[in-house]
Amino acid sequence: MSEDRIWTAALIVIGDEILSGRTQDKNIAQVALWLNLQGIRLAEVRVVADVQDAIVAAVNELRARNDYLFTTGGIGPTHDDITVDAIAAALGRDVIVHPKARAVLEGYYASRGGLTEARLRMARVPEGAELIENRMSGAPGIRVGNVIIMAGVPHIAALMLEALSGQLEGGRPLISRTVGCWVAESEVADILRETEAAHEGCQIGSYPFFRDGTVGANFVIRSTDQQRLDACTDDLVARLTVIGRETFPDGI
Amino acid sequence: MSEDRIWTAALIVIGDEILSGRTQDKNIAQVALWLNLQGIRLAEVRVVADVQDAIVAAVNELRARNDYLFTTGGIGPTHDDITVDAIAAALGRDVIVHPKARAVLEGYYASRGGLTEARLRMARVPEGAELIENRMSGAPGIRVGNVIIMAGVPHIAALMLEALSGQLEGGRPLISRTVGCWVAESEVADILRETEAAHEGCQIGSYPFFRDGTVGANFVIRSTDQQRLDACTDDLVARLTVIGRETFPDGI
Repeated sequence: MSEDRIWTAALIVIGDEILSGRTQDKNIAQVALWLNLQGIRLAEVRVVADVQDAIVAAVNELRARNDYLFTTGGIGPTHDDITVDAIAAALGRDVIVHPKARAVLEGYYASRGGLTEARLRMARVPEGAELIENRMSGAPGIRVGNVIIMAGVPHIAALMLEALSGQLEGGRPLISRTVGCWVAESEVADILRETEAAHEGCQIGSYPFFRDGTVGANFVIRSTDQQRLDACTDDLVARLTVIGRETFPDGI
Repeated sequence: MSEDRIWTAALIVIGDEILSGRTQDKNIAQVALWLNLQGIRLAEVRVVADVQDAIVAAVNELRARNDYLFTTGGIGPTHDDITVDAIAAALGRDVIVHPKARAVLEGYYASRGGLTEARLRMARVPEGAELIENRMSGAPGIRVGNVIIMAGVPHIAALMLEALSGQLEGGRPLISRTVGCWVAESEVADILRETEAAHEGCQIGSYPFFRDGTVGANFVIRSTDQQRLDACTDDLVARLTVIGRETFPDGI
């Protein structure tokens, strides 16, 4: 594969607790940042309810048009944990009890009241799946085809990402630089547009803020190429300097 | 309309800053909680990039199957703010400068360097749209058909929601009660499933945690009917008490 091929992933956040507003999602940002390091771009995210048809439809649409599809949530032991069944249905695979997952859970629950039927649900995987280690709670993540099934609890999802680090084929990591400036973004909109247009392979994002009674903005330049990134950043700083604006190289 | 009709909304979060992981989204939870109070259920969320085709496709799919579609992000003055153009394209409407929005922005920027061409972008709306007041920054939100276009900055989006409170037709608000218990959710999975099945119109969510060296869970019962909600909650408490578990009425 060429280094310039763009690898993409989608994420499905599964869970009524996000849609009801009870829980503030933390997995989108966490997965996004981790993917940047793997050279994979998070292209789209969906949050869906604990409803099989909704999960199946989202899984089949997103796995087809991305290199990878991640899911978070719905792999616990309770009645609303239907992710494995829904993904197996989407893939047209049976659900089986994975022998290694069962052994891991037996060990984990040996001193915690034993492996009940409900707990055994966490060893169920779509047929042909591999496990992703989770040294925190015993219940593993699951990798099947290009679908990666992770826990919804953010620090457990983080451990699963850690176990996957360097395991997925990707492109060059996305890198970024930030330029801060005490200016209203609306005053420099033309400069931002022209600078971005002049530097192929670079995107400039503008993140305004209001602080200490003054408006300012951080401009984030992103690229997969260090030289292009540096050239675009230097050009933006030069253009802001020309109009008499001080810039702050690591943002404000 | 019957009180039992379920009103739904979808949310599209627009912005590369969310997909890159730079910004932690706060609008999903905020919109969800506000919708609960309006008697509208947040049914699905998508996060899409600042790419017109992606926005158009999501807008047309979600506005067709929900009573309301909210968007956040992409309505500022810079080159990456393409939400209004994308939504107008999705609706097959022209983009016009709204006279009242222009007047509001002229007033706001009178003492801030004047209304530049970039700033005037924030007065552009799909033809036929109404404005949603924003007393913080001048730039208004937009309501067009069943689509509600809001700012990405969470505290500005909050002001737009406040301006919309009580303005949208909905059903009965979703209400909830929480029961906390120092128990592994896997030990009570059967009780949760059976209790939910015994109480029509109620859903039980299970939110486990690990604290002070012990596992516990909060069980959240949701319904639009106070009597059903209370009956389901009482039943769950009774079933947990039977197996010797203490419960905490406002969660742990």
